[in-house]
Amino acid sequence: MTAAEVLRRLVVDVPDFPEAGVVFKDITPMLADPDGLALVVDALADAGRDADGQRCVDAVWGMEARGFILGPAVALALGVGFVPVRKQGKLPRETHAVSYALEYGEATLEVHTDAAGAGGRVLLVDDVLATGGTARATVELVEACGGTVAGVAVLMDLAFLPWREALGDLPVTSLMTVS
Amino acid sequence: MTAAEVLRRLVVDVPDFPEAGVVFKDITPMLADPDGLALVVDALADAGRDADGQRCVDAVWGMEARGFILGPAVALALGVGFVPVRKQGKLPRETHAVSYALEYGEATLEVHTDAAGAGGRVLLVDDVLATGGTARATVELVEACGGTVAGVAVLMDLAFLPWREALGDLPVTSLMTVS
Repeated sequence: MTAAEVLRRLVVDVPDFPEAGVVFKDITPMLADPDGLALVVDALADAGRDADGQRCVDAVWGMEARGFILGPAVALALGVGFVPVRKQGKLPRETHAVSYALEYGEATLEVHTDAAGAGGRVLLVDDVLATGGTARATVELVEACGGTVAGVAVLMDLAFLPWREALGDLPVTSLMTVS
Repeated sequence: MTAAEVLRRLVVDVPDFPEAGVVFKDITPMLADPDGLALVVDALADAGRDADGQRCVDAVWGMEARGFILGPAVALALGVGFVPVRKQGKLPRETHAVSYALEYGEATLEVHTDAAGAGGRVLLVDDVLATGGTARATVELVEACGGTVAGVAVLMDLAFLPWREALGDLPVTSLMTVS
């Protein structure tokens, strides 16, 4: 079975959540399935390897809260460390911060200023790529730390939302496109 | 190197965060270290094995947000699925909910009602065991789903806080005690 088949079978559509007209993609049945979870993590980790199967990233970054679920497992599969990108006020040492617009209001993400580390080629991991606002803000955080984003790896992308405009020509690996 | 040595070297004390008089335990240097992260995940996974090295749990549950960082990797190491315990209003299907007291006010945790799954022996994974309030609430959620908590595994416990009172005689694996 491929990762895309796992996701088609084990991601559940929940209509009208969190509000009318939105179809929520519930990944909890996939997370609860040991084989499905392992297959999906392996597929995301492939985004951190080049055509010869060699690792081409130095760290995995994941965004609070659902990026925390898959990011560290992908980091372990690649043999690199994990950097948590947190909501405002959660990180105890000096941070870089980026604010970005939500549908209503705005959100702020932070990362420790020493997060990029040696080399600094970063793979961003998250569950869903929608407007791309969170991913775009995280790209800015990577660059503020002196790193570069090698790619973005997600379980699924929502093709009807403008994430590509937010991410420019960054390499994006999506295991399932929702149209 | 043991997991306890990793934690002593790579968990950083940050005084007066989030408020005066509190020493925050910053685990981000450990997460950023590939060998340290792998060693810690392996040590937590041992809490899900019996004396003969056989797996004795059917799932790993982790609590939002920092329990999401280590829980899925521990689940993969054990070959079981992962269940996210979320803050109120985040899960799209029918949930069980438990509210518990914080220093000021209260918090509510939720889990999907079908989360315990077959067998239903659960290992709870989190980073820090302090008052035990979050862990106690999660134990109640496991039981509401018809499961049983086989044990609690954390990076560190704060010995000067009353988590043992909250957890009764549940088996607790803590990789480092902070006194």
